[in-house]
Amino acid sequence: MTLSRERCKHVRMAELSERSGVATATIKYYLREGLLRPGRRVSATQAEYDEDHLRRLRLVRALIQVGRMPVATAREVLVAVEDESLDRHKRIGAAVWALPHGSPGPAGDGEGPDEVREEATRAVDEALERIGWTFSRAEGDSSPAYRMLVDAVAGLSRTGYPCAPADLLAYARSAADLGAVDLDMVERYEPGAGQVEAAVALTVLYEPVLLGLRRLAEAEESNRRFGGGG
Amino acid sequence: MTLSRERCKHVRMAELSERSGVATATIKYYLREGLLRPGRRVSATQAEYDEDHLRRLRLVRALIQVGRMPVATAREVLVAVEDESLDRHKRIGAAVWALPHGSPGPAGDGEGPDEVREEATRAVDEALERIGWTFSRAEGDSSPAYRMLVDAVAGLSRTGYPCAPADLLAYARSAADLGAVDLDMVERYEPGAGQVEAAVALTVLYEPVLLGLRRLAEAEESNRRFGGGG
Repeated sequence: MTLSRERCKHVRMAELSERSGVATATIKYYLREGLLRPGRRVSATQAEYDEDHLRRLRLVRALIQVGRMPVATAREVLVAVEDESLDRHKRIGAAVWALPHGSPGPAGDGEGPDEVREEATRAVDEALERIGWTFSRAEGDSSPAYRMLVDAVAGLSRTGYPCAPADLLAYARSAADLGAVDLDMVERYEPGAGQVEAAVALTVLYEPVLLGLRRLAEAEESNRRFGGGG
Repeated sequence: MTLSRERCKHVRMAELSERSGVATATIKYYLREGLLRPGRRVSATQAEYDEDHLRRLRLVRALIQVGRMPVATAREVLVAVEDESLDRHKRIGAAVWALPHGSPGPAGDGEGPDEVREEATRAVDEALERIGWTFSRAEGDSSPAYRMLVDAVAGLSRTGYPCAPADLLAYARSAADLGAVDLDMVERYEPGAGQVEAAVALTVLYEPVLLGLRRLAEAEESNRRFGGGG
């Protein structure tokens, strides 16, 4: 069903554009910026593109057009995707690693140790321990996703909405369910670059799906608890 | 434990700043922009602020400093929070409604009916029906969260990662769990403006918590399935 399963032997630029839905001018821009490898030259003015180009183009589009990522950031993500020195798990990790992570909340006053952030770190570590995420605990502060999480928990505290450990744990349980769904989706793609690319693209593309569904779920729950009437 | 439970009778600007952690200059800016109601004037140069000001200040900070919302958008959200003509559920709905919703994915070509978006609408409606969210289905396209969701699903399809109904349903199930956690948190605040404000603030403040946890969960799951070794 998915495009990655289709055979796309060697096609010219016009067909690459048609099959990917990306305008020729945009493809040329991605080529100039090094986000897409050059095609195989077949004459002085023409090149051919293959299945790998089509697949890569989808990922670039997901990062830039949906994820609104700057070109330089997308390039870093792609370097990690292509790093064949890493095994599959490490490549997925390194690529998701390179994704931009939301801006941190309000910072401390910059004087002395940041107690709010330290407390947030303890709360996060406790939640990770209770849910049994040993890998994330071991990586700790070297992981951008972990830092994003600690910053967010510290931001809650600084704005006067402190996060209870039980709430954090409940969120982590839902995240674990989502992680399993995500990896099930990833495993439908071809092992190797296809799966690494899918992991990155799906991480970015499902974020607005999740945030939209959570807002609808809040409205449902609010209606159920407070709605009254018909 | 939470600030909203503390008694904060009538305080001067300096104390409001200290208790909220928001700089005096920033509070004055919020007052000028109409994001905070004026204090009760006690002399030609001094005004007093109360508990409502402190609570409102926390929400404004959550929207602007964490949610990175433009002042005009925050003002619209606050108008909805303050609309006492609505019941609690409707005020929560109207305020979450006014929150900015992520930018849509790549658009269709603008010619003729947008088949990809129509298909995304059908997929979303099917998921909402299967999970039994009758309120969201009834509101449909008039809800910004619903439109955000349809745009995200259409974006997946346009970038070549079509979303299977079962995946959408799995995401909706996790979102339902999160919605219940969120409303449990909201109910810890004082009924009335306190709960409406908390609903808005927690919707915004927990988004980076959720996205950070999901990325950690993906790393855990990827490690479990593909990690090998120790």
